[in-house]
Parts: sequence; C-alpha cells; structure tokens
Amino acid sequence: MGVKNKPLGEQSIQFGRAPYILEYASVCGTKESEGPLKDEFDECSADDLFGCDTWEKAESALQEKTVRLLLRKSGFLSSDIRYMFAGDLLGQLIASTFGLLNFEIPFFGLYGACSTMGESLSLGAMTIAGGYADKVISLASSHFASAEKTFRFPLEYGNQRPYSATWTVTGCGAVVLGEGNENNEKNAKAKITGITTGKIVDFGVKDSMNMGACMAPAAADVIQKNLSDFGYSVNEYDKIITGDLGYIGQKILIDLLNAVDIDISKNHMDCGIEIFDSEKQDTHAGGSGCGCSASVLCGHILNKIKNHEWKKVLFVPTGAMLSPVSFNEGQSVPGIAHAVVIEGVNER
Amino acid sequence: MGVKNKPLGEQSIQFGRAPYILEYASVCGTKESEGPLKDEFDECSADDLFGCDTWEKAESALQEKTVRLLLRKSGFLSSDIRYMFAGDLLGQLIASTFGLLNFEIPFFGLYGACSTMGESLSLGAMTIAGGYADKVISLASSHFASAEKTFRFPLEYGNQRPYSATWTVTGCGAVVLGEGNENNEKNAKAKITGITTGKIVDFGVKDSMNMGACMAPAAADVIQKNLSDFGYSVNEYDKIITGDLGYIGQKILIDLLNAVDIDISKNHMDCGIEIFDSEKQDTHAGGSGCGCSASVLCGHILNKIKNHEWKKVLFVPTGAMLSPVSFNEGQSVPGIAHAVVIEGVNER
Repeated sequence: MGVKNKPLGEQSIQFGRAPYILEYASVCGTKESEGPLKDEFDECSADDLFGCDTWEKAESALQEKTVRLLLRKSGFLSSDIRYMFAGDLLGQLIASTFGLLNFEIPFFGLYGACSTMGESLSLGAMTIAGGYADKVISLASSHFASAEKTFRFPLEYGNQRPYSATWTVTGCGAVVLGEGNENNEKNAKAKITGITTGKIVDFGVKDSMNMGACMAPAAADVIQKNLSDFGYSVNEYDKIITGDLGYIGQKILIDLLNAVDIDISKNHMDCGIEIFDSEKQDTHAGGSGCGCSASVLCGHILNKIKNHEWKKVLFVPTGAMLSPVSFNEGQSVPGIAHAVVIEGVNER
Repeated sequence: MGVKNKPLGEQSIQFGRAPYILEYASVCGTKESEGPLKDEFDECSADDLFGCDTWEKAESALQEKTVRLLLRKSGFLSSDIRYMFAGDLLGQLIASTFGLLNFEIPFFGLYGACSTMGESLSLGAMTIAGGYADKVISLASSHFASAEKTFRFPLEYGNQRPYSATWTVTGCGAVVLGEGNENNEKNAKAKITGITTGKIVDFGVKDSMNMGACMAPAAADVIQKNLSDFGYSVNEYDKIITGDLGYIGQKILIDLLNAVDIDISKNHMDCGIEIFDSEKQDTHAGGSGCGCSASVLCGHILNKIKNHEWKKVLFVPTGAMLSPVSFNEGQSVPGIAHAVVIEGVNER
C-alpha cells in the first residue's frame, strides 16, 4: 500500500493513495437541455418520462440509462464493479432500487437528501483507498416530477412557486472510481484526495419553499472544517462548489463564512445557479435535487478538471432533510453537506 | 497496520485486523417488553410515544435514548465518536435526522430497508479497519406505529392483518465499533471479522403483507455467497441469524438453500421469530423492521457472544424494498440482505 490514509483534523480524511475517477457520465431531462450547461451533459432526453408510465419509473430508467452509458464509456462490465453507492430523494430509495436492480452489483443504499452525491463519492473513495475494491460506482439522481409529487404538490395541481423556491433537476450523474495506481493513471480523469464529512445542522428554518436557507449553515460548517482540517486557505481551490443553494442560499453562505473571516465570494460556484438560466427558464432561486450536483459534477465540473482548466476544487453537495411528514408535523428542515476534494491528474 | 484487509471471492471482505464491538445498547417498546427476549434488552419503554406527540418524533426519541445509553455504558463522549452510520424505515430518514441531530457527529445516512443494521455495521467496520476512524457508532431503528402509517394503514383504521403479515418492532440497537488493537481488547464484547454485501434481488413478489417471501431470496443469495467466498461450511457458524423473515420466509429460505445442497435448518435463527411469542402476542408471521434485527443483535445475540455461549455467528439483516408509492403503482417488492461475520473475543 505504501502511503497511509489518515484521519485529518476534526472531520476529514486525507487519502494515502488518492482514488481515481476513471470515467463519468451524466443524463438529464428536457429543461436541462435548454439550460446553459446543455452541451456539457452526455445526453439530454427529449422525454421526461424516459419511456415509462410513472414519474418514479422514469427516474429509475434515468439511473439505469446513466449507468449503462457510464459502463459503455469506461469499457467496464457490470461484473468489473465491486460495489454501488447510490441514492435518490424518493421515500425508501425506489428510484435506485428499481433503477440499479438489473446490474446485480452489491449495493449500499444512501440517503443524504441533495447531498447524496457527496456521500456516495466519500464512501466510494473510502472503499477504494481502503483496499476493499478495485472499482466502484457512485451515483445520485433526482427527477423534477417525482420530487414535486413527493415533497410539494402533484404537477396537475399547478401551484404557484415563490421566488425562494428551487426547481428540482431531472438528472443523474455517475462515476467509476478506481485504485490510485499506475495502471489506472493513464485513463484517470481526476482524483479524490480527501473528504470532509458533514454533521446534521439545524438552524430551525421551517420553509420548505426556501431550501437554500435550510442548507447554507451546513455548507458553511463543512467548508470551514475542510479548510481548517487541511490547513488550506480559500485560494487553494479554483472553485468551491456547492450543490443547490441557489441565489438565496449562496448569499447566506457567503455571509456566514464572512462572519468567521473566510471570503469565498470570488471562487464560490453553485451547481443550482449554473444549470438553469433563472430568468429565461423561470426557475426562481435555481436548480436543486441530488441530480443537480451529480449531473453538473459529471458534466461541467469534471470536464473542466479533465481539461486542466481547474486544478483543484472543493465539491460540496448540500442536502435539506425535508420530509413531507416531518414538515407537516411542524418540524424544521435541518441541512447536511459533504465536501469532496477533487484534483486534476496527468498535468503536462 | 500489519495485516491487510482483503476483498474475498465475489462479494466479501475479510478484515486484516477485525474491528471490535466495544459496547452495545438496545431500547424497545411495550410489546417487546412482553415478549420472550424482554430481559435481554437494556430498556423497554412503558410509553410507545417516548414522551412525544407524534409517532415519528417518538422514533427519533427512541434513537436518541439508545445512543445516550450506549455512550453512558461505554464511557465515551459523543466527541470521541468520529462517524455515525444510521438509518430507519421512514421516508427521507426523518427518525435518524431528528434523533441524531443533537450529537453533532459526522453522519452517513443509510437506507437498506430492514437490512439497514447490516449495512451500517458493514460500512462502520470498513471505516474502522480502513484506518479512517478510532470509533464509530452503527445503529438502526424502527417503530411499529410510524411504520404502519408509512407502509400500510394508520392505527386508527383498525385493519385486519393476514397471517403472513409481520409486526414491526419498536426498537433500536446501536454499537460502538473500535479499532482491533490491544488497548481495546480488554473491553471488547465481540469482533467483526468479515462481511458479505448483498445485491438487490427481485423474485417478483407483490404482496406487501408477505415480506418474508420478498426477502428470503436475497437472504439465500447472500448466505450462499458468504459460505463460498469464505470457504466455510454451514457448521462454521453456531447460528446463521436472519433479520425478519418470519415463519413463512424462514421456510422459503431453508428450501431455497436446500435446493443448492446447503442445509441451514439446524442452525438457522430469525430475529423476527425470536422477539415475539407469535401465538400469545398475535404477531402472526413474526417481528420485522430494522429495529428488529438491530435490537435483537444488541440484546440477545451479543449477550450470547459476550458470554462465550456462541463463538461465531453470521448476522444477516434482511430488507424488503417496499415503498407505498412503488407498491401502489404495481411494482414488485425486491429484497436485499447484508451478512456480517461476528465472533467472540477474550475466550478463556
């Protein structure tokens, strides 16, 4: 093994031999195909039902399509993959259950709300760097219609949306992680050098139409811990990229970090802000959902890293632990965020 | 580090230095306090609402109570614990979110239906043996009333239950896992020497009132893989212990394994069958829920191992990937099961 993995500071891990992102793939829906990042995704479906008759089956089909594409792009068979780490927003993870069933790969089901891609990358990287597997797949998805039905109103109801509301992305992003060895180096697109795992943070926000405000404190907490655990300044990163805070959450995040003398205003980016043109596409505060950060990672972000435009980013998917049941019972919406340090490889 | 962890066979891991179960705790509800295992749990609450005003908050309170007890028994502070691996059956894991919030420990949310305790032990043990943490907590819970409301009918409806139905256990079980080093040895109650991670298995069963039939094929698959990956015969284990197959699932499991010449009839045990007296307590096929296997592990099973009555068991929590949405849309109920090899320590 050589270099050891080590726990770092309060909440982080530095990997001894950083796992590689060997390949990545993203598939999105119709609205994403009209947004600013449309050319960065591998595929955008013209049919948001993905040929199915329910929104839940559609999300499963989206996951299956993305993983098939990922395997095709990478040249691996499903039998080459030792584990899958996956999750979605639906109750009892039905999008993942039915979407990934046919691959017959040992499965760890995860729920971190919209932070799930951070959780699946973290556990996937720990598994590879711990010597437990050659290759694993980490993924997450969301679907606008299945999420609206679960968390807010069925589409047919035609409810109005306040300006603080976000628009759940119909999208899935998936990566193959592999060992950080010489064999893999030539095909590697990026590497995961460290992680900082978040705590559940509750600021008592009770507005399910303002998820940015629920998640910003968790993002601020994990970013601050990442910088102090690794001993980094903000400028260590080309970008610090949150999942789906949107415009309102972004402002809160920057303010919260300013209050502890950390200024990320110049290198902060939010996947939810990037994926849609809020004015033209009427998406209000921005995109959201675990598919938002997952698809933007497996399109825009990894493209930039592969092409050496960015050397090192902090990827921080953000989740709001919203449930229709707890919300209707008057509970607040706590947030969680998981940070992943992603760096380029094969620089010339 | 010395001895290496190694991937074993198709789906297993053998730990180089087996993580210790340093302490365990279990809390249950009223019906469990009338069952055959009542004296094995640390506590049984006389109030199934645990002082709360909703069933969901009650389940959160149950988790919080169990973890507080676990910390007290072990003498650790929450700041000694590096990660928590936890899950429950409710949509968006609200029992865990609100139950574990106050501990402020980095959190990995898991969903494996009733197999969640197997998933949380597996990932917890991988984290410890990988050198990522000194101590982690793995736990899972379920609550009869919050589960009935989520998956079947509200209690007030007073529906009749077919004989194939199981009774969701109100219970939580939690362990502290620690490094397999000499320092920890004197306090260790058991050790986790290996795991076999399950795939999602779908036999097309569509009956939400017969979960045993949904889960038995997944249990058969992972037990068979465990034996072949480790090169063990059935008699390697004092007990092979499934989570909540109940009487019907047990029969199917034994038949399925008999068909491949594996006879576990003499050492099979099912937590769901043990926890209630089915005839006296009117629980039909047996107990179920992630709290069933978790509480029986953290009571009965670990007591037997600690006292050297059992040397080695295969603990196989079984999950049915049932969701009210997918079920109402006519989908089948796939199963999943995760196997954990638990052995005694400090034998004289």
